[in-house]
Amino acid sequence: MKNEISEASLQRLPVYLNYLKTLGDGERFISSGAIARALNMGEVLVRKDLAFTSAQGRTRVGYKLSELVSALEEYLGCNEKKNTVIIGAGEVGQALLAYGGFKNYGIEIVAAFDSDEKKINTVVSQKPVKDIAELKQGVDEYGVKLAVICVPAAVAQEVADSLVNCGVKKILNFAPVLLQVPEGFTVRNIDVAANLAILWST
Amino acid sequence: MKNEISEASLQRLPVYLNYLKTLGDGERFISSGAIARALNMGEVLVRKDLAFTSAQGRTRVGYKLSELVSALEEYLGCNEKKNTVIIGAGEVGQALLAYGGFKNYGIEIVAAFDSDEKKINTVVSQKPVKDIAELKQGVDEYGVKLAVICVPAAVAQEVADSLVNCGVKKILNFAPVLLQVPEGFTVRNIDVAANLAILWST
Repeated sequence: MKNEISEASLQRLPVYLNYLKTLGDGERFISSGAIARALNMGEVLVRKDLAFTSAQGRTRVGYKLSELVSALEEYLGCNEKKNTVIIGAGEVGQALLAYGGFKNYGIEIVAAFDSDEKKINTVVSQKPVKDIAELKQGVDEYGVKLAVICVPAAVAQEVADSLVNCGVKKILNFAPVLLQVPEGFTVRNIDVAANLAILWST
Repeated sequence: MKNEISEASLQRLPVYLNYLKTLGDGERFISSGAIARALNMGEVLVRKDLAFTSAQGRTRVGYKLSELVSALEEYLGCNEKKNTVIIGAGEVGQALLAYGGFKNYGIEIVAAFDSDEKKINTVVSQKPVKDIAELKQGVDEYGVKLAVICVPAAVAQEVADSLVNCGVKKILNFAPVLLQVPEGFTVRNIDVAANLAILWST
């Protein structure tokens, strides 16, 4: 099932989850129509998206809120703890170290890594900044599953290669370059400037 | 034409642009096949995406590199200067103020706005942090076209309402909530935690 879901649907699942979590009382029922109206989307689209999860809607009443939240959380892996490292403790890296919203998705930022001696062995937002030379050790020690690349574009591929060598399979990349990784590894890009350009041109 | 392009295609245009700009010599020709191989994509997809721009490929030789770069830059509005403000000078806001990659897309960060007295009237990465109470003045003075919301989720809608009242039509939102804006206004979301969750579940 997961293989068939479109990127657009995937991006909407956290939106549903965030919305549903604002509604409180898990015992109530909510219909796909009500969700669609609240989020300004089409009802058929909402129903199709939610069908990717294990949630079962009931005729006329819709979904039990607590069940739908659980189904979305399960799909998005919110209850699996995923130790995550930040590579690059510059401005973006520091912002991520300070950000509290990861916990909702089971994401635990355990440390940052950097090559700058002024940053190594400091503590940012209660998280240690370690020497990038000790990446392999850190990945093994923490059982790291995810990494976020926040280094300049010129060294991003080098960092990705190191992560691949350490066996970190899932990489979120803030550097505005396309990273090459072997089969079985996944890179997802967030290019803030490109997002602004896209916003402008639509 | 712009109305018909898919979100997925739109997201790939900056990727092509970034790649092509690494190639140097604008006089050479490059085929959609060569681009596809370099970026690990399908050739038909590349050709379809590039057809949204004004670039004209020639049989057998492909696109003149300088023309293709210009066509992508034109589509993405890289040559239109767009004065942009950051709302919220916390960790994320400060990271954006320090980020140098906006210039490539014609995006000029002119100022940040905040409600925290400790931040107001400071300077971050050579950019002034102003009082959010003076937003309307700043928007008019700078001719602001774009805004980036980097405030906590609880106050993001309030900030969006202020931006709408000031006539800022395009908003990039980092707060993990769905913002409501009137017709004619556009919001684009970047939810870093949700991106990590999506990366994990694919």
